Amino acid sequence: MWKMGLSSGEVAALWAVLGVAIIGLLYALFLARQILSKDKGTPEMQAVWKDIRDGARAYLNTQLRSLVPLMVLLFILLAISVLVVPVTPEAVETFCAVPEGLGRLEVLQYACPTATWAIALGRAFSFLLGASFSFMVGYLGMMMAVEGNVRVASAARRSYSEALTIAYRSGTITGMLTVGLGLLGGTIIFMVYGKSAPDALLGFGFGGSLIALFMRVGGGIYTKAADVGADLVGKVEAGLEEDDPRNAAVIADLVGDNVGDCAGMAADVFESFEVTIVSALILGIAIAAQTGEVHWILFPLFVRAVGVIASIIGTYLVRTDDEKRDAMGAINFGYYASAVISTIGFGVISWVYMRGEWRLFLATVAGVALAIAIEKLTEIFTGTGHQPVKEIAASTRFGAATTILSGLAEGFESTVWQALAIAASIGVAIFLFHGQPYIYILYAVALTGIGMLTMTGNNVSMDSFGPIADNAGGIAEVAGMSEEGIKVLDDLDAVGNTTKAITKGVAIASAVIAAVSLFGSFFTDTNLVLERLGRPTLAAINVADPLVFIGLLVGGTLPWLFGGLMIRAVSRAAGDMIQEVREQFRWPGVMEGTRKPDYARAVAISTRAAQKELLPLGVMAITTPIIVGLVLKAEALGAFLAGLIVSGQLLAVFMANAGGAWDNAKKTIEDGLYGGKGSEAHKASVVGDTVGDPLKDTSGPAMNPMIKVVNLVALIIAPMVVQFTGLSVGVIVFVLILLAAFIWALRISKRPSGFAEGMSE
Amino acid sequence: MWKMGLSSGEVAALWAVLGVAIIGLLYALFLARQILSKDKGTPEMQAVWKDIRDGARAYLNTQLRSLVPLMVLLFILLAISVLVVPVTPEAVETFCAVPEGLGRLEVLQYACPTATWAIALGRAFSFLLGASFSFMVGYLGMMMAVEGNVRVASAARRSYSEALTIAYRSGTITGMLTVGLGLLGGTIIFMVYGKSAPDALLGFGFGGSLIALFMRVGGGIYTKAADVGADLVGKVEAGLEEDDPRNAAVIADLVGDNVGDCAGMAADVFESFEVTIVSALILGIAIAAQTGEVHWILFPLFVRAVGVIASIIGTYLVRTDDEKRDAMGAINFGYYASAVISTIGFGVISWVYMRGEWRLFLATVAGVALAIAIEKLTEIFTGTGHQPVKEIAASTRFGAATTILSGLAEGFESTVWQALAIAASIGVAIFLFHGQPYIYILYAVALTGIGMLTMTGNNVSMDSFGPIADNAGGIAEVAGMSEEGIKVLDDLDAVGNTTKAITKGVAIASAVIAAVSLFGSFFTDTNLVLERLGRPTLAAINVADPLVFIGLLVGGTLPWLFGGLMIRAVSRAAGDMIQEVREQFRWPGVMEGTRKPDYARAVAISTRAAQKELLPLGVMAITTPIIVGLVLKAEALGAFLAGLIVSGQLLAVFMANAGGAWDNAKKTIEDGLYGGKGSEAHKASVVGDTVGDPLKDTSGPAMNPMIKVVNLVALIIAPMVVQFTGLSVGVIVFVLILLAAFIWALRISKRPSGFAEGMSE
Repeated sequence: MWKMGLSSGEVAALWAVLGVAIIGLLYALFLARQILSKDKGTPEMQAVWKDIRDGARAYLNTQLRSLVPLMVLLFILLAISVLVVPVTPEAVETFCAVPEGLGRLEVLQYACPTATWAIALGRAFSFLLGASFSFMVGYLGMMMAVEGNVRVASAARRSYSEALTIAYRSGTITGMLTVGLGLLGGTIIFMVYGKSAPDALLGFGFGGSLIALFMRVGGGIYTKAADVGADLVGKVEAGLEEDDPRNAAVIADLVGDNVGDCAGMAADVFESFEVTIVSALILGIAIAAQTGEVHWILFPLFVRAVGVIASIIGTYLVRTDDEKRDAMGAINFGYYASAVISTIGFGVISWVYMRGEWRLFLATVAGVALAIAIEKLTEIFTGTGHQPVKEIAASTRFGAATTILSGLAEGFESTVWQALAIAASIGVAIFLFHGQPYIYILYAVALTGIGMLTMTGNNVSMDSFGPIADNAGGIAEVAGMSEEGIKVLDDLDAVGNTTKAITKGVAIASAVIAAVSLFGSFFTDTNLVLERLGRPTLAAINVADPLVFIGLLVGGTLPWLFGGLMIRAVSRAAGDMIQEVREQFRWPGVMEGTRKPDYARAVAISTRAAQKELLPLGVMAITTPIIVGLVLKAEALGAFLAGLIVSGQLLAVFMANAGGAWDNAKKTIEDGLYGGKGSEAHKASVVGDTVGDPLKDTSGPAMNPMIKVVNLVALIIAPMVVQFTGLSVGVIVFVLILLAAFIWALRISKRPSGFAEGMSE
Repeated sequence: MWKMGLSSGEVAALWAVLGVAIIGLLYALFLARQILSKDKGTPEMQAVWKDIRDGARAYLNTQLRSLVPLMVLLFILLAISVLVVPVTPEAVETFCAVPEGLGRLEVLQYACPTATWAIALGRAFSFLLGASFSFMVGYLGMMMAVEGNVRVASAARRSYSEALTIAYRSGTITGMLTVGLGLLGGTIIFMVYGKSAPDALLGFGFGGSLIALFMRVGGGIYTKAADVGADLVGKVEAGLEEDDPRNAAVIADLVGDNVGDCAGMAADVFESFEVTIVSALILGIAIAAQTGEVHWILFPLFVRAVGVIASIIGTYLVRTDDEKRDAMGAINFGYYASAVISTIGFGVISWVYMRGEWRLFLATVAGVALAIAIEKLTEIFTGTGHQPVKEIAASTRFGAATTILSGLAEGFESTVWQALAIAASIGVAIFLFHGQPYIYILYAVALTGIGMLTMTGNNVSMDSFGPIADNAGGIAEVAGMSEEGIKVLDDLDAVGNTTKAITKGVAIASAVIAAVSLFGSFFTDTNLVLERLGRPTLAAINVADPLVFIGLLVGGTLPWLFGGLMIRAVSRAAGDMIQEVREQFRWPGVMEGTRKPDYARAVAISTRAAQKELLPLGVMAITTPIIVGLVLKAEALGAFLAGLIVSGQLLAVFMANAGGAWDNAKKTIEDGLYGGKGSEAHKASVVGDTVGDPLKDTSGPAMNPMIKVVNLVALIIAPMVVQFTGLSVGVIVFVLILLAAFIWALRISKRPSGFAEGMSE
């Protein structure tokens, strides 16, 4: 098969992997039918739910429309890129008639139009495949979460266990879509392209990451604009409770939970899941080309398939009874069941198929261990029972300033330990393949990423569970449900907050692991191109070279730029929202509760605000690596990626953990500590939480896809960059065009924040 | 001379440089006599002043005592390090009888005890020299500032221009000490050791940086503990004005301005000034060894001498009259006068001595340009007239949370542009020495650092001017001076705030430039050692090697760890202060103003709190690079430094600029914007300012010396690290001891923050 020497058993196993991916999707379908058959509760509940559903749908439809032009442009550019970057020897071998026994570069003289077409279409269609899958995961996952919301609320009136099952299974649908489509895409591309797959795989990864960036940024801005806006006017100015139906932004806030925490997170995790397999396959194909051993390629696919099966079983086991009411215990049971099944599965593969190649097994298990370590660290730095949150809560007694300072101190420190945990897992990869070429170590790092994301099915289920429970509670509140039912939903919501925080930590860590292995592919890939061009290959990415050091420094700045711009974007959108809510409060009847506010107007504001910010940020993420590559050259571009990864990891974890810790400090005070709700301490804790919200839900999480979009763009343009040795007129003009695009995007992103302009009372 | 082929003219010029350094010091002495001859005002003013003087003196005396054991230990370790790291061929050539015409390594067989003794003593005594100079600059500078304070207050009753002159010249004393001692030390070491100077220069740099780190950290914690403590209890709880004599922390607060802004800043700038010449000389000596051209060594010394002369003239020109009252104009006039004189001087040297080697001239001028660019950027991001501060001020209307968010957004962004300015100046160095070995480019980077710090004399004068004017105002306030005089001092204080912010930006940027060239010396140095050991030299610091990437990642975490720990330290100290002030408010008579609070007790609290934090942070800064070097080896240690520089630069600038912007946003509101003092907007702006204070005055500035201490430790241990190829038992035991020391230090630094424990109302 594909002239790669796969045995018939291996071919059968590949088809089996494809089968498992499809089983995962069928399981999602099965769960969806199960959920949809449940009742939607009272007419009041359905009325609220319809508003949420329409708002969510409208948002993603607008998003889709506004992204189509960019997608079409990139599709065309990727297709015609084959004119600039010719096909690889591997593509010629795969698609043309080539005599046996030729050297790697001799093959090129047998190049045929089929190979060119195959690669052109492969780059473009894989990009489209990645983008559509990412969008689908987000879209379908979110719509199923919305369908779940109202049914969870309705079930909460009857039974705790039923409400838990519906909420968790609604989330599991997204989980299975994530792992099913992720495995499907990677496997199909490899089955079609064989050893010439890297080109198409990069396109697949790029499409997925780009859409994930947009979903994350858009969803993050949407949700925080609505949340911050609703809180500042509703809670602080007008003294209303959370989810008070008189607040015009209340529906937008509930929609925000769906588009941010469901659609955004799902697309993001999908992208991590996808990119880890992309980098493992690319590195595996490179090793297989040298050793002739195809198991380097197949192992990650098999591991993924085992993970999908383990997730199906583990998630199905999540249930509790109305006596115990132990949602967290049930979810954890499912999680550990999946972990045990996967680990046994990895062992069986290593033993039966890999003939005792235990290093790959250990690298994968190291990933599982890393996931657990990250969860523990996240728990320590953001959990209510631990010292950091206790200290932040204690400092609320001295006002907002000390609250912020102690959150900053804890957040700064937490990022150190998470980075060290990641460093340790890279250390394991080095230890396992000590003395072998870097590519083996990087492959092991990619496997660690694969291992980390083995339980993605469970993680996404747990994560989506959060906003579903939250929304169900909101629906119950707005629709005026019974106390008893609301209590059930509150309990579920508290569990959801914990599961959400855990997933966030894993998502960031997996992003770094994926980025490190992509960065390794960059080095390998660039050298393959240089070899094809008959030019000396890169010996190193030497940061002692001042030009390369500049690349490192510039790469380090990018997360700070994005972080700052995204905070501004949230402020701007929240400012618009505040004006709208204030205006509607002045409408006669709204404050008295005799007239319903116009929720749709607030929803439209969040939708529009989020849309405006997407394109500029996307343009900056795409143009920056191209400019750096063309001006500073390939080696500095490599260092740029290294700087981006290190700086992005530190900043993202700081934001996520500081935000999470402030949030939970507020919760402990609302549970009665230091005077409880309404006390001065509570006010200070609300400031902490409001500051933390855009950090943990917008800027921080958007770092994951941003880092990978930039990495993938760098990988895709690397062959182009090394072709231009000097700064010719054409290159200069191209760089100037890109710079102009960058500056245009920056100017849009830098519009004054929403709190600045003409916003006096 | 020193077998280096210096012409008699060059020798004479070296002596002239030494003479210029001494002239700088004599000028300081002249100014000191001038200041001391002024009157000290009323008995009330003198009483306040004596409290401040005693507090400041007590602080630095305590600091000195607590550091002596560490200094003695390091002195001994550096002296006996010659047993582990043998002398260089250059030392043998300089101090032993060696026949002519031998190769670099052949010389080693002529090694004599004199060389060993010279190097052992050189390393140890240069360390002591650097440390003492750094301490002296801080100590004397601070004491002169204190002497100046009361005389400025007294003069303000008579004349604006006289008050300005005294304040500025008191600051100039520190400025001239900084440049005089910096130039003296570097020149003497070179004159004694010739081409074997690098060893001693590293010791010199290390001593200066380590003391600067302690002065910065100690001073920063002292000043912010007093400031935050005084504000939170005095202003917020008791509703008192700034500098109200009933507040027990008021004297500690005034002392804090001196130990933080005078002593801390002076030691810090001295260290940057010193380290840039250290790295320029080390790189210059390495180039001269290859080319035989000694002008690579002498040029930086000459440039520095020109700078000293230009500063003497420029600072002396600063004066205004009582009509115009234009302090800022006068200070700027002096600054630009110095800039013009220096640039002309550089041109003359390049033309006459360097025989038209204009590249060195241009690299130096690029440094001057970078200093100006950094000043502009700092002004844009923290100045009251510009968009960022305006936006932060506007967002205060929506409460503390939006104030913090907009400050974060602006701070994040500002760090990007400053990093790009630094990248551009490295780009100039690359452009000038395009195609030549890295060492030339790094040398040009070092010259850029030298150029940047040419106006150090002026910068330090401007910077010290700030706290002197501030303290004079405090003395006037506490001593109950006339409105008219207080108005003069307020005007001067406002100017001082601007000059302080500018110096901070330059200090950070120069730290990065110095660190980049030190980092270059690391690479060169390590390879010289490897060559001597007959082992293959490092080809690169290749971040595509996973082990090296770990180094990069770990290096990136260090600034975050320090940043977090220092915020905690300030919180802890402020917590102690709050308890003290609260207790004293309860003393009968204090609130009524009939009984003086016990200022000395508050001073003692700040002093003790600052001392406790120093040693642990110092231990962490020293042990980390040794552990990384021994465990991950030299190449990863290099990447560790690169990660540290990039991450430290970004974090430090973020902290400095966000803090400065919050401070000025508060000022614009206090000047009447959005309701002025007492409004809700003002309260929000106070939160911003209180959060920003420890960032801009403690954590942020401490990054400069921390980055360089770590770099210098890495340089010093590099020869040791490359000698150990494996992990022998001895190395493992040593690493474990260091790790234990690190963990001990971390545990102390991680004690709960002052707001956490038993601090209920």
